[in-house]
Amino acid sequence: MLTRKKSKTPILGIDLLGEDICSHEYILETLQYFYKSIDVSFDLIVFAKQNTISYLEKEVKLFTGSGGRQCALFAVNEVIRVHDDPLHAVRRKKQSSLCLGIRLLKEKKIDAFISTGNTGALITSAKMHLPMLEGLSKAALIALLPTKGGLVAVVDVGANVYCTPQQLVQFAQMGVAYQKSLGIRNPSVGLLNIGTEEKKGRKEFTEAYTLLRNFPSFVGNVEGREVFSGNVHVLVTDGFTGNIFLKTSEGMTSFILEIMSSSSKLLVKEIKKTLYPVECFGAVLCGMDGIIMKCHGNAHPKMLTYSLQRAIHLIQNSFLEKLKCNYSRG
Amino acid sequence: MLTRKKSKTPILGIDLLGEDICSHEYILETLQYFYKSIDVSFDLIVFAKQNTISYLEKEVKLFTGSGGRQCALFAVNEVIRVHDDPLHAVRRKKQSSLCLGIRLLKEKKIDAFISTGNTGALITSAKMHLPMLEGLSKAALIALLPTKGGLVAVVDVGANVYCTPQQLVQFAQMGVAYQKSLGIRNPSVGLLNIGTEEKKGRKEFTEAYTLLRNFPSFVGNVEGREVFSGNVHVLVTDGFTGNIFLKTSEGMTSFILEIMSSSSKLLVKEIKKTLYPVECFGAVLCGMDGIIMKCHGNAHPKMLTYSLQRAIHLIQNSFLEKLKCNYSRG
Repeated sequence: MLTRKKSKTPILGIDLLGEDICSHEYILETLQYFYKSIDVSFDLIVFAKQNTISYLEKEVKLFTGSGGRQCALFAVNEVIRVHDDPLHAVRRKKQSSLCLGIRLLKEKKIDAFISTGNTGALITSAKMHLPMLEGLSKAALIALLPTKGGLVAVVDVGANVYCTPQQLVQFAQMGVAYQKSLGIRNPSVGLLNIGTEEKKGRKEFTEAYTLLRNFPSFVGNVEGREVFSGNVHVLVTDGFTGNIFLKTSEGMTSFILEIMSSSSKLLVKEIKKTLYPVECFGAVLCGMDGIIMKCHGNAHPKMLTYSLQRAIHLIQNSFLEKLKCNYSRG
Repeated sequence: MLTRKKSKTPILGIDLLGEDICSHEYILETLQYFYKSIDVSFDLIVFAKQNTISYLEKEVKLFTGSGGRQCALFAVNEVIRVHDDPLHAVRRKKQSSLCLGIRLLKEKKIDAFISTGNTGALITSAKMHLPMLEGLSKAALIALLPTKGGLVAVVDVGANVYCTPQQLVQFAQMGVAYQKSLGIRNPSVGLLNIGTEEKKGRKEFTEAYTLLRNFPSFVGNVEGREVFSGNVHVLVTDGFTGNIFLKTSEGMTSFILEIMSSSSKLLVKEIKKTLYPVECFGAVLCGMDGIIMKCHGNAHPKMLTYSLQRAIHLIQNSFLEKLKCNYSRG
């Protein structure tokens, strides 16, 4: 184990054993990046399998040699895998990198633990071993997302499928504290919802709105579309919605980048052509005996043309008949 | 009113009075687009204010003169506005374009109604006047979204804040019927969820999963990230989550396009630099007395470096202390 220096050098635990296969080279490259890119001093505890440690030992000395930096390699035999059941894995694999990291954190032997491991297992293990902070009833995952106005902290992105209004308020507090730590003096808070009006959305959201009203710099409800304009520093949501929100942003981003890189011409025009259907097609109000399409207010004529064409298409292809048939067939 | 021809020419009702201000020119331009772009024959009923109608009358004759196309202008005095309370508006403004359109649909005087109006009012009015299709208990909004594999139909994107598992199954059926109408022979169905495992997510989703298992071409749960790879033709979700999903995709898209158009160099590299933080920063597991970051499995060393830096930053900026302070101050 590392000796804690009198100076306030942070000690960090690193668990890169998230994937089933984690090569020596990957760990080495990562460590090289750490030491090359980070100027402030830090000490590391790196979890790895014994054979990786043998491979790394000499290399690590090269990084740490002169600067007084400590990098301890911690041998583990067990790894919690991506598809392991979290609770089961945490109970059985007590000597895994993930569980050991949490335990070191509990014993204050490290100041932070960074893991690429099974999210569920990480949450389960943390809940099991670490006390909750006073006043907080649930843990939440916070993610940062780029917007026009800088990074927004999204809380929760997946730890809690259900949340009470009180917990949503706690998430706001977590997000504010997080953004303050990152240098935002007075972080604004928004509630991710399906409309800006106070009474919009699920009950827990309308109740949270009321509770948040007295919150410093609460700006109200924010729609998924508006988040990226960057008006809020903290976006409060439950873990189910937040997870969908985050992964959707990621998915859309990779999709756009893929379009760009596969196209040699790289024209905005092309990208717009591919992506604008998002706004073009309007939405179909489905379920009743009639074809109804909803378009954006102020929609461009071109987009309305699409909707019209689509409506015609639906009529000509007996959309309602098809819907009825689907039902009669059960 | 238009006379219904013996041929199967569709009659469509168009309500462009979604925004409070809807100029003559806007309506004219839209109609020009319609007639310029659409080859198949169709008849139109266009709702407009009396002064717009006077402006349009001559012009409309130019479009319709030779082709035997009918375009009737329907004068309305009332408009339901964007911020009107839906139920109140629908009850009070019975002569509005939105309500009249639904009524024409009910009376089979039009085959489809296309509106840029208040979504809530549109749903309310439709529910009030049109019978539900047999076997369907709730109306849903379906939107189409581009993916690598073509367009995915997302059901519901905002009509129902809460859904039962049975309704989610109905949404699957709606989406399948919709995609079939658009030419997909055997549309695959996915459930928008926070993980691919059967037991993931909210209770109504796990129950819907069980019900959907016997559904033709049900592929299971789909995460927000995977939707864009285009493996499903129909994405089933409740109206709250679906609305967030849709608007997030839209917001992300406009954001990326704005980055591109404001940059004269238009380099993928730049875009990546701005957007990759999505994957870079990992997530903070917040709420317990310890700093825990979750990174993607197999994350690039560069991204892990960001996480490490962030962890250091959090320690040095007393993140946990700030969180505690937030609480003690209430």
